[in-house]
Amino acid sequence: MTTIHYLTHIEFEAGAVALLPGTLAALGIHRPLLVTDAGIVHAGILARIRALLPSPDGVAVFAETPPNPTEEAVEAATACYRAHCCDGLVAIGGGSPIDLAKGVALMATHEGPLAHYAGMAAMPLIGAHAAPIVAVPTTAGTGSEVGRGALIRLRDGRKLVFVSPHLLPRRALCDPDLTLGMPAALTAGTGMDALTHCIETFLSPRINPPAEAIALDGAARAWRWIARAVAHPDDRQARWEMMMAGIQGGLAFQKGLGAVHALAHPLGALTAPSLHHGTVNAVLLPAVLRFNAAHVGDKYVRLRAAFGLGVDADLAEAVRALNQRLGLPASLRAMGVPADALEQVVGGALADHSTPTNPRPLTREDLAALFMEAFNEPYRS
Amino acid sequence: MTTIHYLTHIEFEAGAVALLPGTLAALGIHRPLLVTDAGIVHAGILARIRALLPSPDGVAVFAETPPNPTEEAVEAATACYRAHCCDGLVAIGGGSPIDLAKGVALMATHEGPLAHYAGMAAMPLIGAHAAPIVAVPTTAGTGSEVGRGALIRLRDGRKLVFVSPHLLPRRALCDPDLTLGMPAALTAGTGMDALTHCIETFLSPRINPPAEAIALDGAARAWRWIARAVAHPDDRQARWEMMMAGIQGGLAFQKGLGAVHALAHPLGALTAPSLHHGTVNAVLLPAVLRFNAAHVGDKYVRLRAAFGLGVDADLAEAVRALNQRLGLPASLRAMGVPADALEQVVGGALADHSTPTNPRPLTREDLAALFMEAFNEPYRS
Repeated sequence: MTTIHYLTHIEFEAGAVALLPGTLAALGIHRPLLVTDAGIVHAGILARIRALLPSPDGVAVFAETPPNPTEEAVEAATACYRAHCCDGLVAIGGGSPIDLAKGVALMATHEGPLAHYAGMAAMPLIGAHAAPIVAVPTTAGTGSEVGRGALIRLRDGRKLVFVSPHLLPRRALCDPDLTLGMPAALTAGTGMDALTHCIETFLSPRINPPAEAIALDGAARAWRWIARAVAHPDDRQARWEMMMAGIQGGLAFQKGLGAVHALAHPLGALTAPSLHHGTVNAVLLPAVLRFNAAHVGDKYVRLRAAFGLGVDADLAEAVRALNQRLGLPASLRAMGVPADALEQVVGGALADHSTPTNPRPLTREDLAALFMEAFNEPYRS
Repeated sequence: MTTIHYLTHIEFEAGAVALLPGTLAALGIHRPLLVTDAGIVHAGILARIRALLPSPDGVAVFAETPPNPTEEAVEAATACYRAHCCDGLVAIGGGSPIDLAKGVALMATHEGPLAHYAGMAAMPLIGAHAAPIVAVPTTAGTGSEVGRGALIRLRDGRKLVFVSPHLLPRRALCDPDLTLGMPAALTAGTGMDALTHCIETFLSPRINPPAEAIALDGAARAWRWIARAVAHPDDRQARWEMMMAGIQGGLAFQKGLGAVHALAHPLGALTAPSLHHGTVNAVLLPAVLRFNAAHVGDKYVRLRAAFGLGVDADLAEAVRALNQRLGLPASLRAMGVPADALEQVVGGALADHSTPTNPRPLTREDLAALFMEAFNEPYRS
């Protein structure tokens, strides 16, 4: 049975963040908790957004979101939510604050522990009384602002997904001007996250033509604009296009992701080094594209056409060359991943919710080979 | 401000209608009113669906939906809903029963008169307490099963739109097998409705890339499969593809339609002749494509590519030839529209909600010229 379920209310335009006070009023949120991280505070974005609210000084803020959200941080933010008698959340940032806010929306309204609600099978346990979230993305790539899921690392080290339509932000205020000036490395990593969402969703064998159409369009958009956004951090059109590609990935990935994400999730659960999710995706993508090549029908033909590549172009090599042009690392080894992480990563990937929707079935040996290929990237010229 | 708001929960597969009892239970609908029309009763589809329910004989049915839903029919069905103490609706049929059910969902729960809720501006008046609807489409084209709007002809003769997220069916059970054996004329007319939704949405100047991507994919799908569905009424793949194109149009038309629909709505409000909406769209489409040609950027290039037409192909002529191949009428005159309907139709079109999203601005003179061109279709070879 093909389930197609479209998503939330998005306001998308330069300046959209100005809609925040009216949006909170429309949703009946009177005492929001602003969830963000140190980078957003440092960039002055939190202060700008806070100043939009009726009583800026009285607003509750949790700014300690770690680079990859953890159960401990969810608990700390939930305590803050309760202490201030909050009635909703505003998540400001990349995927980490938005995912963390989803964890708070859940734990502030449901009996613990968090692990009880992990995985696709636990979806029915998450009710409509989850706290409402308004998402204000400040990067372009995660798609979490229009997604039903959150990835959170539990105390036991597993990085698990929490999914429910009730965790979907009630509104996403997508303001590409908030991404102006974003550093090159973060623009490249988050942009490759968007591109990877679109490519893996497009290749997923599940049947969902609307999601597939959105994904192909988003992939073409990210491919066309990512280098410009990286090279010209203040190019407003490039920022608009990349934020659009990011939400297109997020609207589409209900169709299922694949081996890149299956491996990226346990890699993101490593405590040392703490890896940037989108950058890990970029490094994994060439190996996975080579692995899947014979299992995708005509879809590489269509991707090559959408990317303006020659009909005989090697798609995996084109992605590797793009990574290089964007200044991204060439391999997991170059990112500091220890070789002995292989077993933990492969174990996590085998159990990951993205594994069943890779176009080519994945065995333990396949995943180990993909890890090693991305670890070494022997194809680098 | 670009508002992108995706839609409802769709189950799409041959046999999906079998999910109806579980769907009603999940939505807490214990006493549904089945809304349908004489054609569905005659085809035996109502009996098949009724037999799926726990107590088939006790189920309330309103089967008197007219070809174009009217205020009078909404009132009659609402009386039936109240008399049977119903708590939800199952709309079975093409766009007419689904739109009628939306009228009942509104009038059974809101203070009248119906006209009070007409138009985009009245959207905030329609609340979440509107009765829940499950839509079971039996044609492929309307998109009403995944849309927020209903078109209903009021007592005063105006055909107006009623729009609210709360009128959106809570579930659409899309079972392409229900369309097997649909007569050629209805397959062609409803299929051209799907194609027109996708083309007009794709051409709309509003910014909504996800909707635009869905529309282009849906247009290509309808273009490829419509003739096969018409020629081979029992071809299951053709029926699957056309039903998918229908929901793709419905998912996309939040981006706005254009002059075809602006004219088709008042034409559908004529009491004599009573016109089939999709067939009217098909007849209007060539003239509107010619009219818009210089105002669409590269979009005709992309449509020609998606349709597999030559780079120099005349898109309007290709649609006219397709209509001819499908056995559709060549002109409004051939459909029995009187020439003196022009003034009423042009007046209605000027005020129509689709007029502002035509890619080329529309004056009264433009609309009159389009009417006359479709009335005569002088380009027919």
